[in-house]
Amino acid sequence: MSVATFYHAGCSVCVDAEQNLAYALDPARYTVEIVNFADSPERIAEAETAGVQSVPAFVIDGNVFHVNHGATMAQVKGE
Amino acid sequence: MSVATFYHAGCSVCVDAEQNLAYALDPARYTVEIVNFADSPERIAEAETAGVQSVPAFVIDGNVFHVNHGATMAQVKGE
Repeated sequence: MSVATFYHAGCSVCVDAEQNLAYALDPARYTVEIVNFADSPERIAEAETAGVQSVPAFVIDGNVFHVNHGATMAQVKGE
Repeated sequence: MSVATFYHAGCSVCVDAEQNLAYALDPARYTVEIVNFADSPERIAEAETAGVQSVPAFVIDGNVFHVNHGATMAQVKGE
């Protein structure tokens, strides 16, 4: 079982990707974790370390997949 | 059953997304079609009509998800 972490920031682009892509993964092979930085700002550093540059993004088995473009990580951090 | 069409152009970014994301969808809910423009240039117009601006990209139930960035459609068309 792989862990697929979907990072987002609550933006409309993020929610669209969450509903139509994040939940599309095969539950028999992937445990999907949804991380909303608005609720879990302490996860920002972990995402950046994994290579996330913008949200929404998926990290699956260490591979980062940026999906469309909602916001940069700088914007997420309010910089 | 939904159809998820994964458009790509054979680039390394595309192949990585194909192997790690396209095949991750739930086969019980999605029929995944892989379209490589190098093999099927006649599908380019259809992708552009759907809203694909770069590859790799997923079109799922009419929603376009650009995944990372391999090439623009202009580059795909050799413009």
